[in-house]
Amino acid sequence: MRRARIRTADGLVDAVVVELAGEDTVLTVPDGSSPQQVIDDPTTAGAELSLEKVRFAPPVTPGKIICVGLNYADHAAEGGQQAPDQPILFMKAPDTMIGARDDIVLPRGSVKTDWEVELGVVIGGEPTGTAYLDSEEQADAYIAGYVLVDDVSEREFQLERGGQWDKGKNCATFCPIGPWLLTADEVPDPQAIRLGLEVNGQPLQDSDTGRMIFGVRHLVHYISQYLTLYPGDVISTGTPAGVGAGQHPPRYLTAGDTVRAWADGLGQHLNQVRSN
Amino acid sequence: MRRARIRTADGLVDAVVVELAGEDTVLTVPDGSSPQQVIDDPTTAGAELSLEKVRFAPPVTPGKIICVGLNYADHAAEGGQQAPDQPILFMKAPDTMIGARDDIVLPRGSVKTDWEVELGVVIGGEPTGTAYLDSEEQADAYIAGYVLVDDVSEREFQLERGGQWDKGKNCATFCPIGPWLLTADEVPDPQAIRLGLEVNGQPLQDSDTGRMIFGVRHLVHYISQYLTLYPGDVISTGTPAGVGAGQHPPRYLTAGDTVRAWADGLGQHLNQVRSN
Repeated sequence: MRRARIRTADGLVDAVVVELAGEDTVLTVPDGSSPQQVIDDPTTAGAELSLEKVRFAPPVTPGKIICVGLNYADHAAEGGQQAPDQPILFMKAPDTMIGARDDIVLPRGSVKTDWEVELGVVIGGEPTGTAYLDSEEQADAYIAGYVLVDDVSEREFQLERGGQWDKGKNCATFCPIGPWLLTADEVPDPQAIRLGLEVNGQPLQDSDTGRMIFGVRHLVHYISQYLTLYPGDVISTGTPAGVGAGQHPPRYLTAGDTVRAWADGLGQHLNQVRSN
Repeated sequence: MRRARIRTADGLVDAVVVELAGEDTVLTVPDGSSPQQVIDDPTTAGAELSLEKVRFAPPVTPGKIICVGLNYADHAAEGGQQAPDQPILFMKAPDTMIGARDDIVLPRGSVKTDWEVELGVVIGGEPTGTAYLDSEEQADAYIAGYVLVDDVSEREFQLERGGQWDKGKNCATFCPIGPWLLTADEVPDPQAIRLGLEVNGQPLQDSDTGRMIFGVRHLVHYISQYLTLYPGDVISTGTPAGVGAGQHPPRYLTAGDTVRAWADGLGQHLNQVRSN
């Protein structure tokens, strides 16, 4: 199931994306209905909307977003970094999230705003939280689904202004996410998802999740040894090669650029870049 | 005003701490009343409770907790670190918060769980958020108040397991906070607050906020250039010397310890340490 949340004149409304007459269509989920009901019987939908015209909001409400650094060997190498021997974790505040078609805003003074297409894992499980999984195999039971994330990063803020990466990862609008959550039952193998990113139509990232150093199940198990995971939390699993900092010469986002991130089954982002 | 939130059989209830008959007393704020009403006329309070017996919950609901690293020169020195030339920022997930009398739980496998008493700044301002303050002087208008924070940290997770500090800062229960929010109008100078911490009655930290490298106004102004600040967000402003890692030999928390953090006007924490 592809679960979305869309902006309407009446506020945020739950929706599902279904194929009707050969085309993806967004159906709103009226109060009192379940998404599955709407899929089973589309006549229960509140409204039928064209995918192209919908204003997607972030499809999740995470309490925290845990990001994994340098989780593709080719991305570590393009930054002159060693591949890590265990997952590197950092945080992105949920208030940085924007929808799949919203604008990425360059922070004032930024000259190194960069892109990172990533597979996001949305946590499920009990409201009381999940910690200390015994094995990687247990991870599946705590994954609600997957979502496309762009871990937008200001490299100067991240690396050249003292200390920790979070400073360059938490600027407003730095987490385009969506357009939908794809439920885990529709993802037989999270390590077989092709994903990529282009800027102004030029392909810059194109890889697949099979190339992660630490796979999804490993990450969920590993992170659960340190942090308690709650339903809705997102783990963004790292980016493959092809970020702006890895180009020769480096290339960063400027106002007017269009960033298209995509992943098989997870849809795409189309974010315009603008200055503040 | 000292605003608290307490756990009752009916769930979380807003409260204020006032001096009645020479003693601090907790008065609950019934629905429809304002905290100021209760202070002005204590007979409007829903219940009158002894400070010692109240179950304090975290008094704030931050969307994010931004922590400042190495913001006292003596703490940087005890860790063998240079004092930073600009604030080091990292993040603590709000789900790590516990109340002022709750238990700190040692993560499994932890041998280096450490304490850090800190002054927390609670952000106010508009719901749309605050960014790009023009000057430090503007910061005051965006500070709702102050709160006592213990930035509990697992040093091995933070420093010896790859990459970024967040891994050792975000274990469950690692953010004792409260017992109350002291509103900014009662804090004429946030750089003149004495604060400290003891373990099992032994004083280990005792300093004052005048010794910060980057003061509160500087931090709010600085952070607003990078992150958007929303009402309820907390900035934890760093810890002075005296953490466990700085002892000779280093000393860390073990099950059965009692941690008492305190700050003038902000009350105290009394957290028991237990194993998981």
